[in-house]
Amino acid sequence: MRRQVVIVGAGPAGLLLGHQLRAAGIDCLLLERQSRARVESRIRAGVLETVTTDLLGRLGLDRRLKAEGMVEDGFNLATDDQVIRIDIKRLTGRNVTVYGQTEVTRDLIEAAPERGLEIVFKAADVAIHDVEGDSPFVTWSEAGEPRRADCLFVAGCDGFHGPSRKAIGTGAEYERAYPFGWLGILADVPPCHPELIYANTDDGFALASMRSPTRSRYYIQVPLTDRLEDWPEDRLWNELERRFSPLADRPVVRGPALEISIAPLRSYVFETMRRGRLFLAGDAAHIVPPTGAKGLNLASSDVVYLAEALIAAVRDGDPAKLDHYPARALTRIWKAERFSWFLTKLMHRFPEDGAFEHRMQKAELDYLASSEAMQTAIAENYVGLPL
Amino acid sequence: MRRQVVIVGAGPAGLLLGHQLRAAGIDCLLLERQSRARVESRIRAGVLETVTTDLLGRLGLDRRLKAEGMVEDGFNLATDDQVIRIDIKRLTGRNVTVYGQTEVTRDLIEAAPERGLEIVFKAADVAIHDVEGDSPFVTWSEAGEPRRADCLFVAGCDGFHGPSRKAIGTGAEYERAYPFGWLGILADVPPCHPELIYANTDDGFALASMRSPTRSRYYIQVPLTDRLEDWPEDRLWNELERRFSPLADRPVVRGPALEISIAPLRSYVFETMRRGRLFLAGDAAHIVPPTGAKGLNLASSDVVYLAEALIAAVRDGDPAKLDHYPARALTRIWKAERFSWFLTKLMHRFPEDGAFEHRMQKAELDYLASSEAMQTAIAENYVGLPL
Repeated sequence: MRRQVVIVGAGPAGLLLGHQLRAAGIDCLLLERQSRARVESRIRAGVLETVTTDLLGRLGLDRRLKAEGMVEDGFNLATDDQVIRIDIKRLTGRNVTVYGQTEVTRDLIEAAPERGLEIVFKAADVAIHDVEGDSPFVTWSEAGEPRRADCLFVAGCDGFHGPSRKAIGTGAEYERAYPFGWLGILADVPPCHPELIYANTDDGFALASMRSPTRSRYYIQVPLTDRLEDWPEDRLWNELERRFSPLADRPVVRGPALEISIAPLRSYVFETMRRGRLFLAGDAAHIVPPTGAKGLNLASSDVVYLAEALIAAVRDGDPAKLDHYPARALTRIWKAERFSWFLTKLMHRFPEDGAFEHRMQKAELDYLASSEAMQTAIAENYVGLPL
Repeated sequence: MRRQVVIVGAGPAGLLLGHQLRAAGIDCLLLERQSRARVESRIRAGVLETVTTDLLGRLGLDRRLKAEGMVEDGFNLATDDQVIRIDIKRLTGRNVTVYGQTEVTRDLIEAAPERGLEIVFKAADVAIHDVEGDSPFVTWSEAGEPRRADCLFVAGCDGFHGPSRKAIGTGAEYERAYPFGWLGILADVPPCHPELIYANTDDGFALASMRSPTRSRYYIQVPLTDRLEDWPEDRLWNELERRFSPLADRPVVRGPALEISIAPLRSYVFETMRRGRLFLAGDAAHIVPPTGAKGLNLASSDVVYLAEALIAAVRDGDPAKLDHYPARALTRIWKAERFSWFLTKLMHRFPEDGAFEHRMQKAELDYLASSEAMQTAIAENYVGLPL
């Protein structure tokens, strides 16, 4: 049997694409390298733009999101001595929703069988073939058995390290690495503040965030040379308490780490998002630093565009939108890359920066504190630029 | 005779301060190292914010400015293929006026005698003494004769290289040099466009500007290693024609250079703007890169604050405003430094930038083209933040 679309990767990009295709009656198969349990336990982002929540709403997959998501009307940019609240609701008429990417993934996987979205977990050694011809196919192995699916189109939603981008080969690639990482802790304790606080303090960047009213997510900037063993949990909590006590409404409550990790920060765009019948979406094509929480939301807009194009091609026999997909997606991707880069530069201490550059950060925050126009510019990016 | 205020430097900062003090009946003496002819022929900036035009209006010194100044309701940020017009009038309700700094200086010098503002030109070897005591004095030589003026206060308006900042001694200093210069040409030819065009092209930054409807001022970015002899006028005009033909309303008209020069770009702030009875204003305390034309306008806001403070101290015996002068001035200075740095970074090609950083410039300009909020943020800085 020839499938209409094979999607590689059952993260949010692949799952959101699969559900959109199924809603249009398109047959598709989703291949995921990891087990279901592993996919459902990956800790990722937690702030959803309306581009994501609207999509979940259109798909009728937002029951738990609506019940448990925390609608946020603002967020905060802070220094050691001032908290600038960005009133996104007043400035843009929109808001964001705090709801863990983990929860989105669970909801989408749980709804897959009833929607006829077939997911193969633990699909090993996925390889994509003949994408330049009319009969591409994907091979993988399941419990040691070789498998093959012929198809019309392949969607590469398999993240930065997946096989899809490699199947495109050489392309137009843009990259920036940052000279620090984020040390993050997730714990079942109430957040210290009702809204996110991004802080640029004399000791570097820190972020007080949450996944729910009872689950907190904190981060601090650390040198790339730091290792987890340098950061016993108490040391991290001490640091968080010191930085957020002057800024937050409530004390920083400590609890055992559900997850603790150090992640590097990277900006990356692979512009060659199509090769023949293979299309990339989400982290397979681009990475943003986590500052501003654009990663998941950018995957959402990619797959909104890609679903439209695949539906037009498969159902209506009109391939024009597939031709326009990379350019259309990249317009929004570059703007989100810009915002993530801007906010990263504004809120972190860069080892290479001198006293003048540091004063520029301070001047930018002082200006922001006094300018409704600049607050609006930041707010409209934070809630997500229009599709 | 003890003078109330001695001002060092008869550039716009010193002249605008002197006229304000005279309007309040305060006695002051202005010392200028150069000849009157030399001061009146210095080619400098040409875009005045309302902070400057309003001040000239309050002083009744805007007759020629009103007759000859070109009121501009917008300016343009361009790339090789798009021109983004920033409609400053619509976005901020204000505008800027094109009127050469040279003309401002002439008007202020010409009005000095009738206002009782005494200016000594060719005052050599100016030195400032005993500023920490109650009886400061200034010495200089006139045609080889030593002179001395005792005074209550000294205002250092003598630019980046003058003696005033040196008389303060060690202070809090912030600096950034840029890895390129501006090659500028002034010529009596009609401008190619009714409003300024700042362009970030594949060949680097270029600016089409003007001083009047018949006098143009153009600049291009050049490596710091370039010398004037590398740039015969024809080569420069060819370059300007190539860059501005696709962007401007009219052709680039050529004419003999009234002035041609290469200037480095620098950001600089000396925060210690006061020592005892000595106060710095304008370029003596801070330099901005010329992108955005903040230099003269920042001198204007400094001397508005400083005049208020000196008048309160001398006429009303209230020194409190003098204590607040540095902090008050620095709030606006740092914001203007930020804007000049931001616009310089946005519109120039930096040799150290890679492909990613270049794409960030492009993404920033694309975002700007589509965002009224970001255009407003740029416009409000361009017309000048409130005093």
